[in-house]
Amino acid sequence: MTNIAWFFELLPEEKIVEEEMLKTIQESYKKFWYTTIETASIEKNKVLLAKWWWEIKNQIFWLYWLAQWCEKWKKDYSLHFDLTLPFWRYVVENKNKLTFPFKRNQIQKVRRWERPQRWRFREFYQTDIDVIRDANLDKNYLFYDAEIIFTLFTTLNKLFKKLNLYTDFQINLNNKKIILWIIESFNLEDKTQQICSIIDKKDKINIEQYKKEFEEIWVKKDDIDKLIQIFNFKTNKIEEIENKININNDKLKKWLEELKKVTNYLNYFNIKDYFVINLWIIRGLDYYTWTVFETFIMNDRKLWSIAWWWSYENFTKKIDSKTNFSWVGWSIWITRLQSYIFEKVKTEQKTSSKYLLLNLLNSKKETINLYLKLQKEWKNIEMYPNQDKIWKQLKYADKKWIKFCVIMWENELEQWNFQIKNMETWDVKYVNL
Amino acid sequence: MTNIAWFFELLPEEKIVEEEMLKTIQESYKKFWYTTIETASIEKNKVLLAKWWWEIKNQIFWLYWLAQWCEKWKKDYSLHFDLTLPFWRYVVENKNKLTFPFKRNQIQKVRRWERPQRWRFREFYQTDIDVIRDANLDKNYLFYDAEIIFTLFTTLNKLFKKLNLYTDFQINLNNKKIILWIIESFNLEDKTQQICSIIDKKDKINIEQYKKEFEEIWVKKDDIDKLIQIFNFKTNKIEEIENKININNDKLKKWLEELKKVTNYLNYFNIKDYFVINLWIIRGLDYYTWTVFETFIMNDRKLWSIAWWWSYENFTKKIDSKTNFSWVGWSIWITRLQSYIFEKVKTEQKTSSKYLLLNLLNSKKETINLYLKLQKEWKNIEMYPNQDKIWKQLKYADKKWIKFCVIMWENELEQWNFQIKNMETWDVKYVNL
Repeated sequence: MTNIAWFFELLPEEKIVEEEMLKTIQESYKKFWYTTIETASIEKNKVLLAKWWWEIKNQIFWLYWLAQWCEKWKKDYSLHFDLTLPFWRYVVENKNKLTFPFKRNQIQKVRRWERPQRWRFREFYQTDIDVIRDANLDKNYLFYDAEIIFTLFTTLNKLFKKLNLYTDFQINLNNKKIILWIIESFNLEDKTQQICSIIDKKDKINIEQYKKEFEEIWVKKDDIDKLIQIFNFKTNKIEEIENKININNDKLKKWLEELKKVTNYLNYFNIKDYFVINLWIIRGLDYYTWTVFETFIMNDRKLWSIAWWWSYENFTKKIDSKTNFSWVGWSIWITRLQSYIFEKVKTEQKTSSKYLLLNLLNSKKETINLYLKLQKEWKNIEMYPNQDKIWKQLKYADKKWIKFCVIMWENELEQWNFQIKNMETWDVKYVNL
Repeated sequence: MTNIAWFFELLPEEKIVEEEMLKTIQESYKKFWYTTIETASIEKNKVLLAKWWWEIKNQIFWLYWLAQWCEKWKKDYSLHFDLTLPFWRYVVENKNKLTFPFKRNQIQKVRRWERPQRWRFREFYQTDIDVIRDANLDKNYLFYDAEIIFTLFTTLNKLFKKLNLYTDFQINLNNKKIILWIIESFNLEDKTQQICSIIDKKDKINIEQYKKEFEEIWVKKDDIDKLIQIFNFKTNKIEEIENKININNDKLKKWLEELKKVTNYLNYFNIKDYFVINLWIIRGLDYYTWTVFETFIMNDRKLWSIAWWWSYENFTKKIDSKTNFSWVGWSIWITRLQSYIFEKVKTEQKTSSKYLLLNLLNSKKETINLYLKLQKEWKNIEMYPNQDKIWKQLKYADKKWIKFCVIMWENELEQWNFQIKNMETWDVKYVNL
């Protein structure tokens, strides 16, 4: 792996793995009718900074260029740092041309300034899918949550199979509204922000620290124990959650009812063993407004969280006050998965060719003939271009990790006899075409 | 088609066409063992400006960003404007890890500032392949020329077939060295630059203007006629060219011999009817140094030139004086082809789904069951997400140009009876699963 200013680049053999990953992911997205879109790599600064500008402003790569007709330098645009804002702007711009609910897949590179660190790059692929709906016309959105989770489940399964990774994963599901109503029912709504950020740390700190953090914001001992009991509970049965929470509040009931519907749909899709309801899943303090989830790799702590989810209500209002779009979506953290694979799994190919036809005959015409013929039958055969010495040709095959060399000498031409040499064992097999 | 500051974006139905095109091209490249690489979208300014900075400097999008640890603004990088320079830098950087001759395919977007005009955008895909060799070790490069032309031929054929375009094309071949030695044999070498730029206009001006331009640079009447005769001649037989030129010069002979070898290889690949030697193909005045070609669409003037070629000798020396790489490559002008298709051919799909399963049953569980079952058998079936009124569901299918709707009512569930409605003719067929 090399890089320019931490914009990373893959070697050909690594790129083969990446191509396979992206292809597997996109084919799976398309199977569930997420249509491909690709947006420009730039956005207007005022669009980019509309969402959480205080977090973003130091993370973007700004552009400037000479507008030649007026000899002025233009400075209104930057490279996009995610695919959410471009998608949002694209939908608003094309709202009359798209059919809603609009399901899109977008696999594209994004660029953001980051301090150099392991597994973090300044340019990387995001692999998003989203379902966006016109919230004025379409109120029945819960099925989208389930369908998108089913798509994630299928996609990850295919991806791990393709990569020969035997990995268990678990989709952890929650609804932000539930967290908020639980906090309210404890009369702690003025501490919502702090409580959420404590809950969000749950996985990183021990139980003592966890308690201490609650104490520090003046939550009562009794309430701390109850809160911890609630937020530490995981199950895939919504009834158990209801019993655990045991709070009589109509609003809370409503959102539990919603979560129940989603989990029912997931059961219909036959994936009930692969998800749990996990009340401490927060996914950012204020961005996302209803269902949230994360996906965890169970048997490999290094990979841990590799897919995340978002949901927005009425977000497009910020750039177009007449629209009322809401959406849910998720992304696989492909860069993390990739770095993991390059560290753990040895890449196996430097090329996708399996055979190398050596160039040994006197006549180039015959060699090309043989090549065209073999290519029709075997597909994955490459031809060494020049009549170089045989050791040079074998060295080429070896360096590219091509498994077999096809050797035909001038005197074997008449009988169309040739040898196939296994480059690992150096065994030779004679073949007659 | 929409755009941000002339960075263009496709609608989903247009993107389907683009995806098909890129996939067809890349699969064909890979079939001939051009390995995929992808380089960073940025390059150091000093690399970008190493090649013809006087042409480039007004065409690039410059970047700046805040290096947070030192609170300084960095301004050393810009977006790449082609794939040649990044490829060149990539090869020099990774020279010990690559196997030469290294055949790469690179399909990636480039960005350059352009005055807005039809079929010219500021962000577009380039679809390059190249064969790069270490010129110190590998002197037998002529086969690469032929192989790359054969790859172009096969790729364009597949692409036109995929797009249902019945289009004849012709590959026009030349060797820059031949042009130069012809000019020298007329003792006009001090006017090489001017003569080349006149020849390059051949296609755009009439014969009178053509002659006049030669007169203006003080070429003798006699020589003008001879030059025009030579440069207007096209054939696919090298002997006819030799007769036509009829100049006894050893260096010229050497390069004609090279061109002959290339055309012989092309004959072995059985494509002799698809190329001609065309002496007026110049392809830029000073960039390219030996074989050059262009590809012309014969029956459609609008498309005309859609693929071009380059060859560089020792180019990498400019950034690394110890290296001596030379290469040949070409690119299909995909944006031009695409714009042509969007104007000429109506896109036929807004989605790749062919069937829409309407959501009409009382139980979501049954609907999902039916959907999973049909998806296994038919593949390209989409499910309408909500139990909306039937007219709303039909409208969705209509707007997305989905051909068939699958209708199953509650009372047909027991017999697994359903109707398939053709959305164009409104015919209904009854099916029993």
